[in-house]
Amino acid sequence: MKTVGYAAHSENTELAPYHFERRELRPNDVAIDITYCGVCHSDLHTVNGDWGPQPYPLVPGHEIVGIVSAVGSEASKYKVGDKVAVGCMVDSCQECDHCHDGEEQYCRNGMTPTYGVPDRQTGDITQGGYSKHIVVREEFVLRIPENLDMSRAAPILCAGITTYSPLRTWKVTKGSRVGVIGLGGLGHMAVKLAVAMGAEVTVISRSNNKETQAKEIGAKGILVSSDQQAMLQAASSLDLIIDTVPVKHDINIYVPLLDLDGTLTIVGQIGPLEEPMTLPLVLGRRRVAGSLIGGITETQELLEFCAEHQLYPECETIKMEQINDAFKQLATGDLAHRFVIDMTAFEA
Amino acid sequence: MKTVGYAAHSENTELAPYHFERRELRPNDVAIDITYCGVCHSDLHTVNGDWGPQPYPLVPGHEIVGIVSAVGSEASKYKVGDKVAVGCMVDSCQECDHCHDGEEQYCRNGMTPTYGVPDRQTGDITQGGYSKHIVVREEFVLRIPENLDMSRAAPILCAGITTYSPLRTWKVTKGSRVGVIGLGGLGHMAVKLAVAMGAEVTVISRSNNKETQAKEIGAKGILVSSDQQAMLQAASSLDLIIDTVPVKHDINIYVPLLDLDGTLTIVGQIGPLEEPMTLPLVLGRRRVAGSLIGGITETQELLEFCAEHQLYPECETIKMEQINDAFKQLATGDLAHRFVIDMTAFEA
Repeated sequence: MKTVGYAAHSENTELAPYHFERRELRPNDVAIDITYCGVCHSDLHTVNGDWGPQPYPLVPGHEIVGIVSAVGSEASKYKVGDKVAVGCMVDSCQECDHCHDGEEQYCRNGMTPTYGVPDRQTGDITQGGYSKHIVVREEFVLRIPENLDMSRAAPILCAGITTYSPLRTWKVTKGSRVGVIGLGGLGHMAVKLAVAMGAEVTVISRSNNKETQAKEIGAKGILVSSDQQAMLQAASSLDLIIDTVPVKHDINIYVPLLDLDGTLTIVGQIGPLEEPMTLPLVLGRRRVAGSLIGGITETQELLEFCAEHQLYPECETIKMEQINDAFKQLATGDLAHRFVIDMTAFEA
Repeated sequence: MKTVGYAAHSENTELAPYHFERRELRPNDVAIDITYCGVCHSDLHTVNGDWGPQPYPLVPGHEIVGIVSAVGSEASKYKVGDKVAVGCMVDSCQECDHCHDGEEQYCRNGMTPTYGVPDRQTGDITQGGYSKHIVVREEFVLRIPENLDMSRAAPILCAGITTYSPLRTWKVTKGSRVGVIGLGGLGHMAVKLAVAMGAEVTVISRSNNKETQAKEIGAKGILVSSDQQAMLQAASSLDLIIDTVPVKHDINIYVPLLDLDGTLTIVGQIGPLEEPMTLPLVLGRRRVAGSLIGGITETQELLEFCAEHQLYPECETIKMEQINDAFKQLATGDLAHRFVIDMTAFEA
C-alpha cells in the first residue's frame, strides 16, 4: 500500500515529505487511515540520533489515532470504520510471561517499537505515524471509545500511558499525595490523571511561572524547587512523585519530599542522573524507580478512563508542514501541552 | 548506677576504659547486666567521626544482650533474671503514626539511637553497649527466646534486623530469588535469613574468594561482578538484591540483574552512589530503595525466627581489651563474620 509521510533523512536535518510502502495485510493485520498523530519529545530525540544511530529515512510518531480502512483475513477485533489507536509498540513475542500478563512493553524478547526497528517477520524498518496510513497487527491496535474526541486523543497513547501506568502501579487513589516534577507534555497529563483518580497533586517546578496552568488542570499548587524553605516544609509530604524531567538532574532535592515507602518514578530522563545520596532513601525506606509506557490492556483501560472523565491532553493542532517549527519549539521551549498533527489536512 | 566500659575520647584514637554513671531507674526502665555486645562497622565509623562530629567520651555498641538486674516501679514487661536484648534504638516519641505502627526507626520526631545523642528527658548523651550495664525504657527492650544462645545472639540486633526487615518488606518467601552484594557482617546474615525463608540466594562479590563460605551458609553460589559474561547471563534473574556495600559504588552493574519490579535495597552505604543510569530502571520497572534497621515488633519477631531456625550470626568472641585490634581488622579486612565482646569477662 502506497502512503506518504514526513521522514528524517539524516541526523539533525529537517523532516521532509517521504513516499513509501506500507506492507500488504497479513491475516491478523489492521490497516488504518491516520487522522491525528501526537508529537512526542522522543520523536525529536530519536530522529536527531540522540539515542543512537537510526535507520534513515525514518518516519517518527507513536501517538496515532485513525479509522480502520481494511482488515486481514483472520483479524476479528476490528472492522472497517472503527475508530482506533496505536501507541509506542506494534509487536512483541506474545509468548513470554510478561506478554501473557499484558505487559508487552517489558517483553522478554524485546517489544517492537512503532518506528525505527526491524519488523519481526520481514526485517523491514517500522515507520511511525507522521504518515497517512499504517498497518499494525490487531493485538496492538486499541479501540477509541465512542465518546472520546479523536482530535484530542492522540497524546494519550504515549504521554498519557507513560504517566497513567506508574499512577496505577503505585496504587494512586482518592487522597493519595502525588508530586509531578515538570509541567510539560508528560507532566500535565500526570497532573490531570492523578487528579481524576482523586489524588491531591502538587507540581514541583523550578519557578512558579506555570502556577496558573497547574491550578487550571487541578493541581493544588506549585512547589518551587529552588525555595529551600518551602522544600523543607514539604518534607515527607508525598506518596508518589512522577519525575518527568527529560535531562540529567539531581533527584536528591526531591527524594526527601516522599513519605515512608514513597516512590519517585523516573519517566522522562533516559541517561544518567546526578549522584544520589543514600541517606534519604535509607531513613524513609524511600524508593526510586523507573516505568516504561504501559501494556496494551492498560492502555485500553486508560482510553476508557479518559472517555469516562472526558479527560484530554492539552493539544495544539498543527499541520504536517509545521512539524519542523514544532520540533524547534519542543527543543527550546517549555510547553505544558502537546502538538498534534492533523493528518486529515495533509495531502502530498 | 556506676558502670564501666570502653569509650572513644576523640576522633581516630583508640578506645580506652571509661567509668561513668547510668541513670537511676525511671518508672518504666529496665536495668540490664550486659553479657555480650556485637561490634558493628557503624561503631567504628561513628567514633572516628566519619559521619559527623561526636560528643566524646562516647561508648559505642548497639548489639546488646544481657540479663535484667532491676526494673522500674511501673515496668511490667520484664522481671529480674530475664534474658533480654537492646538494638540500635532506646527511645522514640511513641506518639506518631510510625511509632504506633511499630516502625519506631522511622519516628517522625526522630528515634533516639542507643549511643551518641541526647536522652529525650534529660539531654544526657546516650551511651552504648561496650559497657557492663545499661538502663533502657522497657518498650525498647527485646526478649531473648529461651532456646536462643545468648553468646551468639548479639549481632541479630543490628546486622540481623537490618537485613531481615527488607527481606520482609519485599515479601521474600519460598522460591524468591535473592541476591546479596558483599559477604560481610550484614551480607552473611542476609544470606542465612533469606535461605531460612526458602529463597534461592546468590552472593554477588568482586571475586569468588568466599565461595566456600557462601555455600556453607546456604547460598547456591557466587556471581562474580567483574565477570561480564556471567553478569549478562544473570540479567533479570533476581527478585530482590540486598546491597551491603559500605562505600560509594556503582549500582548500574547490579540493577540489570533484577527481574521486572525487582528492588535493589541499600543497607550498607551511607553517602553518595555513583551516577545511576535510568534505562535499566525504566526498561524493567526496577527499583532502588533504602531500608533502616527494623521496628521493635519486627526485631522481636526476628529473635523468635532465629530461635526457631537455630540461625546464628557467625561470631568471633573477643575480650573488651581486644576491641582496638578488632576495629583495625574491621577497617582493613573483609570479614564474613561479626566480632562479639564477651562482657562477662570484663572487669575494670
